Amino acid sequence: MKLSVDRNNDLPLYRQIANQIREYIRTGALPLGSRLPTIRELAREYGLTRLTVQNAYAELQAEGLIEAGVGRGTFVAEHPPIPTSLHTPPVPALSPPSWLSQGILADMMRMTAHPDLLSFAQAIPEASTYPTQELSRSLRIALDDPFSLSYSSTQGELSLREQVAHILLDRSIVTPPDLVMITSGAQQAIDLALRAFVSREEIVLVEEPTYVGMLELAAQRGQRIVSIPSDTYGILPDALESACKRYHPRLLYLIPTFHNPTGLSLSHERRQALLRLARTYDFLIFEDDVAGMLAYDDPSTPALKASDMDGHVIYATSFSKVLLPGVRLGMIVADEKHLVPLLTARRTSDLFSSPLLQHALADYLHRHHLSTHLQRVRPLYHARRDAMLSALQRYLPECSWTTPIGGFNLWVTFPEQINERDFYLQAIEHGVGIAPGAAFFLQSQSRAHMRLSFGAHTPERIEQGVAILGELLHTQLRYLQRLATRTGVTSSLL
Amino acid sequence: MKLSVDRNNDLPLYRQIANQIREYIRTGALPLGSRLPTIRELAREYGLTRLTVQNAYAELQAEGLIEAGVGRGTFVAEHPPIPTSLHTPPVPALSPPSWLSQGILADMMRMTAHPDLLSFAQAIPEASTYPTQELSRSLRIALDDPFSLSYSSTQGELSLREQVAHILLDRSIVTPPDLVMITSGAQQAIDLALRAFVSREEIVLVEEPTYVGMLELAAQRGQRIVSIPSDTYGILPDALESACKRYHPRLLYLIPTFHNPTGLSLSHERRQALLRLARTYDFLIFEDDVAGMLAYDDPSTPALKASDMDGHVIYATSFSKVLLPGVRLGMIVADEKHLVPLLTARRTSDLFSSPLLQHALADYLHRHHLSTHLQRVRPLYHARRDAMLSALQRYLPECSWTTPIGGFNLWVTFPEQINERDFYLQAIEHGVGIAPGAAFFLQSQSRAHMRLSFGAHTPERIEQGVAILGELLHTQLRYLQRLATRTGVTSSLL
Repeated sequence: MKLSVDRNNDLPLYRQIANQIREYIRTGALPLGSRLPTIRELAREYGLTRLTVQNAYAELQAEGLIEAGVGRGTFVAEHPPIPTSLHTPPVPALSPPSWLSQGILADMMRMTAHPDLLSFAQAIPEASTYPTQELSRSLRIALDDPFSLSYSSTQGELSLREQVAHILLDRSIVTPPDLVMITSGAQQAIDLALRAFVSREEIVLVEEPTYVGMLELAAQRGQRIVSIPSDTYGILPDALESACKRYHPRLLYLIPTFHNPTGLSLSHERRQALLRLARTYDFLIFEDDVAGMLAYDDPSTPALKASDMDGHVIYATSFSKVLLPGVRLGMIVADEKHLVPLLTARRTSDLFSSPLLQHALADYLHRHHLSTHLQRVRPLYHARRDAMLSALQRYLPECSWTTPIGGFNLWVTFPEQINERDFYLQAIEHGVGIAPGAAFFLQSQSRAHMRLSFGAHTPERIEQGVAILGELLHTQLRYLQRLATRTGVTSSLL
Repeated sequence: MKLSVDRNNDLPLYRQIANQIREYIRTGALPLGSRLPTIRELAREYGLTRLTVQNAYAELQAEGLIEAGVGRGTFVAEHPPIPTSLHTPPVPALSPPSWLSQGILADMMRMTAHPDLLSFAQAIPEASTYPTQELSRSLRIALDDPFSLSYSSTQGELSLREQVAHILLDRSIVTPPDLVMITSGAQQAIDLALRAFVSREEIVLVEEPTYVGMLELAAQRGQRIVSIPSDTYGILPDALESACKRYHPRLLYLIPTFHNPTGLSLSHERRQALLRLARTYDFLIFEDDVAGMLAYDDPSTPALKASDMDGHVIYATSFSKVLLPGVRLGMIVADEKHLVPLLTARRTSDLFSSPLLQHALADYLHRHHLSTHLQRVRPLYHARRDAMLSALQRYLPECSWTTPIGGFNLWVTFPEQINERDFYLQAIEHGVGIAPGAAFFLQSQSRAHMRLSFGAHTPERIEQGVAILGELLHTQLRYLQRLATRTGVTSSLL
């Protein structure tokens, strides 16, 4: 177990240690039941006081992640804690809360476009990293190809599918270009999968919270949808199995790696459990892997598709997060049986993607620019995550949050009594955009959340924005306290 | 009434005259009931023999389009002939015939890509007209705009919507950019309209024949669909009204100008009748206008949307036919009430179109290159239509066909007994691709048809391809005749 200790980081040392061990447990690097170093060993190895390590272990123990017995040492818990909520009955997907004018997806996009807003609402990459020069060159080359301007195939240009097959080796996916299809981003991939595989009478499963674009799509289709609860290790296999027995679902929509909105990854054990369930109950897993290539430290957890031996996983990702959103290109990998209906769905949706952009992107990838690009952006997002963690620690210590090790989303849970709608609207009023937790749930939640996307902002701007959020939170907390003292009324009644 | 007479054209002079008058009648340039010049007048004006004019009039009279009375002169018939078939009951959209492997849309695209095939199957423009140079320049300029590579708005970039509003003035549509949305071509526009406005229980109307991409989409959605018959003037208002009374449809899908597959345009009177019906029975008309800007002689019939006073028309077109297919950009114009659900549908489909391509296209259009481009391509397609008509007259005189005055589709009706499937497959075997009539109908037809798209081929290639089709037809006709002579069996029993 290797840990990194940063004494210049605002995050207390015990928290740094606890966060890293938590991630090791979650990703399976520390298997369930395995033994941890003693407090003394760890303190010596990293030059820490014993109190620091003890505090870190105490935090993990309080979370139920590790167990200590006198004289026996400290172990990763065999049975990590499971939230009490189980699966919910099938509900027609709900419309977003009425206080989101046209759906939160639209609001997020508007917040990004607003010049006076420092917005953490939309998950977007840092614009200065977009490879304008290289792409310009590739576009010129693509324009020389007469086929770039004409009709193209629905499956996508072979040159790009070949490059995609090559790139996906990084996600441990081995696929021939014949089983790749190009899409207009991952959102279209989700839409095509629902069109191809799920009629409105059939059940779709999602983990909760999950990607807002999936929930809005399901709402629009009038889809029957069942949500499965998740904890810090990801979706709960037991709850999933109960839902399978009861509802015979056709498809599970899942973001196993650098989840949206939480930023966390599904543990190794649960990945295996999910694949077993998919085989047993014969449902498809739609793996949304848009941030999968953005692990801060290589190599990241392999894609779920990499372990899919019998074609139960439809894999999808896009270039929007890892490279740039403006080319609007993504991809699906599926076995032949499932590729055919996906192609039919694509044909009637919009026929094909621009061959000009496909050729340009294929040329860019052919020159191996993507790995160079990833080497540049991974440390950038790592540093911004650190800046976000420090700022949260400094300005919002009453909240709890996740510690992602890839991507640029982070999930914050507010203290009780905070009203999500008020906080969201006041944040905008004070010049800061956030993604409100309600957007990511089907059912209304008693506790307020927010997703903070830190990809597009410098550490300075991150601190500046979180400081404003902190002021707002404290204003609200003081107000609630005054109110409670004076009247006995708590916010849940307001 | 102005006619053009081309003595170097292979088409007999009487046919040239008849075709032009037929078009004048169809488009309303010659109103129903109006008086035609006498045979003597017309012969003198254009230096023709009286027999030539007499033959032309006789042909139109046989078709029921004009009426002549001794001493009264010749008039456009008050009541043009109406086919006996009326509307059909609602049927779930059928799958394409089983001899089309994955749907004809896929087959058409494959035929275009096949290097050894001279294909008239897909409606594509002439590739040498694609404005590579100008677009390259516009792309470079677009790349300098940092917003070209990032997330964009679902409605589309304002710069492009402004240009689109300007272009649509040519179709007599006056719209603010606020009521324009950008799409991934016209196919996506159709998909969005069905998603936004028609649930699966509700009825969609189409004219028959109609665009194959609409029929495949409806089949995939399991849509309830009712087809309305049409004649050479377009869809029949009486049949439409009966269907409205009976089925309370939500939407009519229509291609009023340079129809696909027939190439003909809806008459002025019927356009007015349709708009009245839409008001009376409160249904939406989806106007697919992809070829509307390709009139051989300016100005073309205004779009139906131009006469839409109360927001019953959703207008859609794309740049695929008029400029180039490779940018995958199209547009919708609708009033605000209808635009909002269309935007919601677009957001969950694929979020937005590439801002890079939108900025580049906006720049191209801003330099007024489209009108220059149209001035180049219109005479080109006119000449190719003439080449196609001459070749049909020479090699397939047993067939009848339409005479479009815009676009690059033409519709051929075979003599009785010809088996469409055999002809289609044999044509491919002999190196010529066609679009079989069955693709454009919901119900199976007793008579064989084919659509010939002549946009992408030189007059020489057109003649070469049609000559092969002619040989095939004559081989089949001789075979059928021998068989009938010997056995008394006709092809309908084969």
